[in-house]
Amino acid sequence: MALSVVRTAAALRALLAPWRREGTRIGLVATLGALHRGHAVLVERALAACERVVVSVFVNPTQFAPHEDFARYPRTEAADAALLERVDAHVLYAPAVEEIYPPGDATRVTVSGLTEPLEGAIRPHFFAGVATVCARLFCQVQPDVTVFGEKDYQQLLVVRRMARDLGLGVEVIGVPTVREPDGLALSSRNAYLSAAERAAAPALHRTLQEVAAGLRDGAAMAALRPDAVRGLVAAGFSEPDYLDLRDAETLAPRDRLDGAPARLLVAARLGATRLIDNIPVQRA
Amino acid sequence: MALSVVRTAAALRALLAPWRREGTRIGLVATLGALHRGHAVLVERALAACERVVVSVFVNPTQFAPHEDFARYPRTEAADAALLERVDAHVLYAPAVEEIYPPGDATRVTVSGLTEPLEGAIRPHFFAGVATVCARLFCQVQPDVTVFGEKDYQQLLVVRRMARDLGLGVEVIGVPTVREPDGLALSSRNAYLSAAERAAAPALHRTLQEVAAGLRDGAAMAALRPDAVRGLVAAGFSEPDYLDLRDAETLAPRDRLDGAPARLLVAARLGATRLIDNIPVQRA
Repeated sequence: MALSVVRTAAALRALLAPWRREGTRIGLVATLGALHRGHAVLVERALAACERVVVSVFVNPTQFAPHEDFARYPRTEAADAALLERVDAHVLYAPAVEEIYPPGDATRVTVSGLTEPLEGAIRPHFFAGVATVCARLFCQVQPDVTVFGEKDYQQLLVVRRMARDLGLGVEVIGVPTVREPDGLALSSRNAYLSAAERAAAPALHRTLQEVAAGLRDGAAMAALRPDAVRGLVAAGFSEPDYLDLRDAETLAPRDRLDGAPARLLVAARLGATRLIDNIPVQRA
Repeated sequence: MALSVVRTAAALRALLAPWRREGTRIGLVATLGALHRGHAVLVERALAACERVVVSVFVNPTQFAPHEDFARYPRTEAADAALLERVDAHVLYAPAVEEIYPPGDATRVTVSGLTEPLEGAIRPHFFAGVATVCARLFCQVQPDVTVFGEKDYQQLLVVRRMARDLGLGVEVIGVPTVREPDGLALSSRNAYLSAAERAAAPALHRTLQEVAAGLRDGAAMAALRPDAVRGLVAAGFSEPDYLDLRDAETLAPRDRLDGAPARLLVAARLGATRLIDNIPVQRA
């Protein structure tokens, strides 16, 4: 089946209506485009759960602050479509901004609590933008399943909470982060890195692994953090925005492993590029 | 067809799924219960547009402030069910609070602009509660059409904007206010009025008609308001929270009729009971 490219909510609705009437399960992978192998894995996961998979490509203005990289965010639609054909996605939904934010738009979807620490503390606009665009995409697509990468771990939790709270009837599946052989998490923003920065970038994941090993040996974050930060800075990163151990469900701060699922999360700049990463940590 | 009473989102989904698969048009009338003849007219309007009509009865906690009448709001489910059977509604959806607000709920839907004047200025919590509960009910029911009374005119505009902005694909129909023979707008809160208050209450609608006549004669709100307020107070009302002429679409303040559709809106207390009303006004 060839990839269908649709650009309006009305065309999308018309395409999906007969599938829905037949009881076909529909999956959605919501992306900002600039698709890479990590996105391909998300599509494969959706295909494993659903007969039909829609991939949205929409650089969502409301999740970028004025000083952020909305304008220069990579837009590569022809390459995106080629990738989606290779992985057998069924629909590429590439709406214009007005299809998601109609003229006079005044409605926002917000999630409290989960959105406040970590990315929310650094990018206060971010999660209202994410929750708002995902609510709209979920309303337009009405998917049975949607798949998000764990690379944006807090986003995964926020979207899952929002979908449950609004009663959207969509299962939100998380997929482990896909990495380069040297450990760097795949991200569309890796394209911003110079060759030297690219060489330094794996220190982010390596630091997470080292801190995780320390935690599993019984050390506390408070004891491990200073060396880890020094290591990141020595590798060329900024002081991190955060390097935190958090409860894997609630994101409540933790200082040590105590047997409950936890997540180790980091964000730091490498030159002009802000990178984030996270890994699960559990006592051995 | 007998009235089906369902109390969970899952039971509702199961009941509606086959109708949806057959392409049956579904209408929703969202209410707080304590149904009266005004609600019956909303159901009749929905039946004119749809083959199946769901009426939700849910006293929504998030649209009441702590000092308001959530606890004493009239709850009359047996009488509500009897009325819905008489008017041939198909489904009474009476969810428990946890069906709409799951434990740990953290998501709110907000609409800016339209929600700020009038009721929004007096009841700052109100429209976030309304938009949030309506978004959830629309997600659960996925109606083709929903019908709201013009009695809560600002609410009608807010719900219509929210549904459009989120792309919920539901048509929001407004129905003219149903009134007692003496002009009092039907409202579940009229049950709070003493006999003496009930006798005084029609002054609210009469005042709107008198101001509208003055506007049609070319007078300005600023000139008409003082006498109108005096009349309301003489009839036993409080100073009104507002007595305003507004653009019928944007709710922007207006001082005179200029040919564009306008709305004259009022809110005032009669004893402990807050009453609202509004009428359309257009130059003759």
